Amino acid sequence: MKAEIICVGTELLLGDILNTNAQFLAKELAALGITVHHQWVVGDNESRLAELVQQAMQRSDLLVFSGGLGPTADDLTKETVARCFGDTLVLEPEILQQIQQYYASTGRHMPQSNEKQALIPQQGGWFDNKNGTAPGIWFYRQGKRAVLLPGPPNELCPLWHEKVKPWLAAEQNQALYSLVLRITGIGESHVEELVGHLFENANPTAAIYAKTGEVHIRITAMAENQQRGEEMCRAYAEKFYALLGNAIYAENDCTLQQAVVESLKKQGLTIATAESCTGGLVSQMITQVAGASEVFGFGFCTYANQAKHKLLGVSTELLDTVGAVSSQVASQMATGAAKVSGADIGVSLTGIAGPGGGTEQKPVGLVYIAACKGDDVYVAKLLVGNRSRETVRTCAAKRALDMARRLALGLPLPHTKKFSATEIAVLEE
Amino acid sequence: MKAEIICVGTELLLGDILNTNAQFLAKELAALGITVHHQWVVGDNESRLAELVQQAMQRSDLLVFSGGLGPTADDLTKETVARCFGDTLVLEPEILQQIQQYYASTGRHMPQSNEKQALIPQQGGWFDNKNGTAPGIWFYRQGKRAVLLPGPPNELCPLWHEKVKPWLAAEQNQALYSLVLRITGIGESHVEELVGHLFENANPTAAIYAKTGEVHIRITAMAENQQRGEEMCRAYAEKFYALLGNAIYAENDCTLQQAVVESLKKQGLTIATAESCTGGLVSQMITQVAGASEVFGFGFCTYANQAKHKLLGVSTELLDTVGAVSSQVASQMATGAAKVSGADIGVSLTGIAGPGGGTEQKPVGLVYIAACKGDDVYVAKLLVGNRSRETVRTCAAKRALDMARRLALGLPLPHTKKFSATEIAVLEE
Repeated sequence: MKAEIICVGTELLLGDILNTNAQFLAKELAALGITVHHQWVVGDNESRLAELVQQAMQRSDLLVFSGGLGPTADDLTKETVARCFGDTLVLEPEILQQIQQYYASTGRHMPQSNEKQALIPQQGGWFDNKNGTAPGIWFYRQGKRAVLLPGPPNELCPLWHEKVKPWLAAEQNQALYSLVLRITGIGESHVEELVGHLFENANPTAAIYAKTGEVHIRITAMAENQQRGEEMCRAYAEKFYALLGNAIYAENDCTLQQAVVESLKKQGLTIATAESCTGGLVSQMITQVAGASEVFGFGFCTYANQAKHKLLGVSTELLDTVGAVSSQVASQMATGAAKVSGADIGVSLTGIAGPGGGTEQKPVGLVYIAACKGDDVYVAKLLVGNRSRETVRTCAAKRALDMARRLALGLPLPHTKKFSATEIAVLEE
Repeated sequence: MKAEIICVGTELLLGDILNTNAQFLAKELAALGITVHHQWVVGDNESRLAELVQQAMQRSDLLVFSGGLGPTADDLTKETVARCFGDTLVLEPEILQQIQQYYASTGRHMPQSNEKQALIPQQGGWFDNKNGTAPGIWFYRQGKRAVLLPGPPNELCPLWHEKVKPWLAAEQNQALYSLVLRITGIGESHVEELVGHLFENANPTAAIYAKTGEVHIRITAMAENQQRGEEMCRAYAEKFYALLGNAIYAENDCTLQQAVVESLKKQGLTIATAESCTGGLVSQMITQVAGASEVFGFGFCTYANQAKHKLLGVSTELLDTVGAVSSQVASQMATGAAKVSGADIGVSLTGIAGPGGGTEQKPVGLVYIAACKGDDVYVAKLLVGNRSRETVRTCAAKRALDMARRLALGLPLPHTKKFSATEIAVLEE
């Protein structure tokens, strides 16, 4: 089945609101094995809408609309689609009563204009909306279906889950299963070099998406049912695991910080953070994970040199000679954080996030990241060229989290140099 | 001028990512007085893309594309649009060199596939992209224009502002001017009550947008030129200032954290943070602002009680009796942070972000926020009901930042109780 997502609303065309409905519906349709080749947004304009609906009916079997079901005169999705589907709208007393009750419950009387929301198609049907006054509507004509949903996400989403999804699933015999591999520590082009040949496959398909500081690979299988789809994705995923190994830190919706917290829990380890250029981003990410308190108790945001010395015991001499942005200071920050907090693992970041503050020797985007466990200190030198302050900070934070993950799981730490906690960590440049 | 926004990417069709580019471009085009009647999302599919481009060229004068300019084989926006505009692509040595330098700056070699990104149209032109390897591209044919931009927002947005916008503005005679008022500390419905009547106006128009922990009001004037538009917006904004006063913390793109850093700089003050439930979110937000080091040096992420005591000197007795989530502990965290760091202002947060950990007396969403300056400590009790962990954390962080802003500027701190640093801060429940 081929579908199109049609979002109606001038506020979308003006960019006044973010179109989260399109993403929600796209995800949901994919999960039902319904292929979406087009998404579009039109304003509350009858002729343009009608023109596009007729086009979409040529191309696709299912049209999913969001918005334009309100009580006001410029809400005309239902009227326009009814005309395109050769259906007529009639007043449904049950809905009218619900709308009146809805207003009564909020201590207001129903404006006359709301009656319009009680109109339903004669041949099509409607879906009860518990969270608003506009019911969902469906039309059918010669194998083509249209589903109309109210624009507010807090009405559209429950209506979809409770009513529309089961209604559509019943029509589907085929299932689309997806598996996402989450990779960090290597860039998109280099992932391409390693596994590029695996992206040329009919079923399952595999596609690569670059994110800040990580790369995702989505494997999608078309199968007779979800279980078979999962088997196919799993088998194909093994090919990626064979080539990318532990650069794959997790699957599907598991974030890097969740993977870190899980790894630490599994090993019964705790972590402390010492952050300069990231200013608390790493501790903030770790504590995004509910239950992080099991593995995390102390975070040091030592933005000033004085803080690095006072809170973490970084040598003032080092700060004065080699400077805060150095492998030496990074390493003392990490060991200091672990020592003061009593944590098993310490991670630290010190660098130049920009846009200012860069020099020839220490350009914007240069970040030293250290991670220590017991007597071992690993230091990485990260250079994020030509990127925004936020990108530099995010890439550095994710690298630090990956080093923590690898240290917790006893995995190798590529592109780092190992020192003993007692020696001064000097990276050759 | 009529425009269409065309976003290319299978990840959008699958709902893997939220289409923020469409909103950004829609807003920007509106601001240039360019009418957008259609927004599209299509996958990386040449024939479907070509079909849409030909349709769009019938209807509209300007086609703005995002995505599909990457180095991989399935990135084919440029190639497809070139064909539709009857243009041919040639290798631009200058861009190739930039891409090679870009890779060199990150200590890597350029994969062969990236050469593709150095192809530019023979009749059209290109826009230099400082934040990535894909330049912006433009095509022209018989009064129709196409602008192609890279998909990553951190590349698309600066490229738009620095290169594309001026290029397009030059073509426009009419101007749409917008002014955004940024409000925090009061909820959307309360703002509605105060200024709701001002949203019924033809020109300038005013619209309200609820954000997490803040509210934005966008005033938009249509005028013969930008200057006149600005005058109209400014005059209308005064009506809002008269009613909302210092709840308006800044205008346009100035974030709350920028406003805080600016306020502190202006007053020559410094700030320190002590965070429990927000885990470094506040320090992370402050250090998002370039140059924050002038006003911020120390952040304490005291997630564990032990950390609150050890780093900030919070009384273990209080932690054992009234517990970490209390006005007393919040106040000791704030004063401790100021004392240890020597900062003029200390802000602290301690609460229950959820989803777990709530009790009848201390439900999920309860956060105590304290801010101190000199001998004065102000404590606020925030209760964010039925929200996600992230929403609770963000609302609390913004409240803390607003308290810091008000303390720095000597403004009143509504809905807080004032204590002396020497007394135990007990809020009546």
